[in-house]
Amino acid sequence: MKHTDSVEIQQFYARHMHLLDGGAAEAWARTFTPDATFAAPSMTEPVRGREDIAAGARAAVGRRAADAEVHRHCVTMTTAQETGDGIEAVSYVQILATRRHGAPRLLLSCVMRDRLVRQDGELLVAQRRISRDDRPHG
Amino acid sequence: MKHTDSVEIQQFYARHMHLLDGGAAEAWARTFTPDATFAAPSMTEPVRGREDIAAGARAAVGRRAADAEVHRHCVTMTTAQETGDGIEAVSYVQILATRRHGAPRLLLSCVMRDRLVRQDGELLVAQRRISRDDRPHG
Amino acid sequence: MKHTDSVEIQQFYARHMHLLDGGAAEAWARTFTPDATFAAPSMTEPVRGREDIAAGARAAVGRRAADAEVHRHCVTMTTAQETGDGIEAVSYVQILATRRHGAPRLLLSCVMRDRLVRQDGELLVAQRRISRDDRPHG
Repeated sequence: MKHTDSVEIQQFYARHMHLLDGGAAEAWARTFTPDATFAAPSMTEPVRGREDIAAGARAAVGRRAADAEVHRHCVTMTTAQETGDGIEAVSYVQILATRRHGAPRLLLSCVMRDRLVRQDGELLVAQRRISRDDRPHG
Repeated sequence: MKHTDSVEIQQFYARHMHLLDGGAAEAWARTFTPDATFAAPSMTEPVRGREDIAAGARAAVGRRAADAEVHRHCVTMTTAQETGDGIEAVSYVQILATRRHGAPRLLLSCVMRDRLVRQDGELLVAQRRISRDDRPHG
Repeated sequence: MKHTDSVEIQQFYARHMHLLDGGAAEAWARTFTPDATFAAPSMTEPVRGREDIAAGARAAVGRRAADAEVHRHCVTMTTAQETGDGIEAVSYVQILATRRHGAPRLLLSCVMRDRLVRQDGELLVAQRRISRDDRPHG
């Protein structure tokens, strides 16, 4: 992994999570490829495509608004390596939740395994698999 | 944003927060421009200038000492872009507090919006605006 | 510190902590120099050498398995400078612990002071000193 790519991946995740936490579900979905897949333990099968990824994000944004909570996805400890098929990036993700007048709490600790690809010069997520530390076997 | 700038900004924040958490109020204030402004929800109006910024930090250092607490400001997920007027850097900040023999706790989750400028080759904060996740509307 | 070194140090810590948290005690120990020293408040004297470092990691991995806990070491806010004798890197470390079906909790907040050296082109830890925020005087 070239150092420039490593820095660009960090910048990508910062932008990506600011969009999600800021409630910009559609713009967030556009940081995935059109046919991206997204798999998480809470899903019975992976979500596929920007439309369904955006729908999932909109639902999460709605739940946060209903709960009057602010969420922050903090991506750290990213390792990345080129494969024949893009960049395999593995990161830790902490999700912090804060209610109005409340203390922040750690909602989830996850590992995020992404296959990133470059389209028209931009990094996009082609495949995401989330594992939750509280469900070590899925 | 060039990659080198992005790395330099990260290095800047690391040094900057080591100074604050280490109790070096004056050295910390010198990482702001002489006429910098600092606005946070806890302030009725922004603080202006290194002297007042240092005074605020000294007061915070004193409170931590009185509480026998160690604080850590963890800056993550920084996005940065050049504007005509410097670099607009937006970061998540977690503040952790630990008492002697106690477990660390998350004190605050904030968003830090900085305008960084370069003076004599060094990055400095010219303007800082903090928003707290527990006070979503200020 | 050159920017490329700064990025490489981050990549090193990501790989390093993925190994530790993933239970790869031997591979983790090989990211230290053969004669590395490791000092932490919980030790009466520093551990020396890869074999003893691996033994300590294996014991920690065993305790986590017995507790059915997943741990994550999140290294942030790293400052680094060249000395005549390697790179002095100072970082914040958050240790998160998550039990099956439980919420993550902050186990420890630490400062990690490493002397990193380059051997055969690779960064390795030659000396590590950990201080815990809950034991400010060791």
